[in-house]
Amino acid sequence: MTEEEIRERVKAALSPQRFRHVEGVVEAAGALAIQHGADPVRARTAAWIHDVAREWPAEKLRSEAERIEVPSGFAMVPVLLHGPIAAHLMREEFGIEDKEMADAVRYHTTGRPGMSMLEKILYLADAIEPGRTYPGVDELRSIAARDLDLAVARAMDAGIEYLLRRHEPIFPLTVLARNELWELINRRG
Amino acid sequence: MTEEEIRERVKAALSPQRFRHVEGVVEAAGALAIQHGADPVRARTAAWIHDVAREWPAEKLRSEAERIEVPSGFAMVPVLLHGPIAAHLMREEFGIEDKEMADAVRYHTTGRPGMSMLEKILYLADAIEPGRTYPGVDELRSIAARDLDLAVARAMDAGIEYLLRRHEPIFPLTVLARNELWELINRRG
Repeated sequence: MTEEEIRERVKAALSPQRFRHVEGVVEAAGALAIQHGADPVRARTAAWIHDVAREWPAEKLRSEAERIEVPSGFAMVPVLLHGPIAAHLMREEFGIEDKEMADAVRYHTTGRPGMSMLEKILYLADAIEPGRTYPGVDELRSIAARDLDLAVARAMDAGIEYLLRRHEPIFPLTVLARNELWELINRRG
Repeated sequence: MTEEEIRERVKAALSPQRFRHVEGVVEAAGALAIQHGADPVRARTAAWIHDVAREWPAEKLRSEAERIEVPSGFAMVPVLLHGPIAAHLMREEFGIEDKEMADAVRYHTTGRPGMSMLEKILYLADAIEPGRTYPGVDELRSIAARDLDLAVARAMDAGIEYLLRRHEPIFPLTVLARNELWELINRRG
């Protein structure tokens, strides 16, 4: 499947607003890949597919999740399932067999300890794509261009703080991921 | 062993400053137990013992932890080990066989999902004892007097926020505990 064919299939699965977000993530992921010496084609392709199940209703996410392998804890918040399901569809529907791309899609909302460069790129691209306008996003964009680990740690902490303020569930894997990144960052000084 | 004998043994193990903190936790734990219909003697006794290993050096905590049963993840931050070690000493040195008291001591710094009332009381007593002076402590004291779950959830969130700001490790069990409490609180409305 060509990038254009993937794009068309994703476009058909999403609302125009969500599709604009995905186009932004593709652009940001490609740019981050070039800045950090990763493969921009794999980064862009993972970005095209990452939200393909994002608009599924909770019931469909839950029933699909029962048929595939989902990392433990994801069922806690149904919307988190759209990552693992998109990783599954990447292989089943798009015919792409690439473990690192699948993991980038699977963990794009939560992160996890031991993230690969591609996982960090997609996680950040989702947070800083041109359509994002929250306070601090410009600073995060400039950090992401020079330091993926620091940018991911900061993005995760901002996400945790948002959930704290709203009394919403915080995903433990994200906490373990930011613990690992800050330990690395604090150690290198 | 009488309460006075326990008090003297704990006093001998701690600096005067730490011992004053422990006296405050004993007072707060007894008061919370009475307010919420728990046994004040068990709450006070657990409070006397909870910090008995708090001033051990990291090396001693680590080597003692290798000899006893410690819940997974506690070794991540050596100071967290003082709870599980004090729970062990409660039985071995103080001769107290009480699973709920031991769990209250074991998890007094971290909390965990499914906390008993005694666990919540000791967790909060540690946070609101009269010697504590951080911003918000008076509000937390007044919440604790009427709603243990809400007070524990707020205290945990304040602790997580503190660690976020300092880029220090956040304990996943605490995150799971506050997720559970907020789900309960949000559900009851």
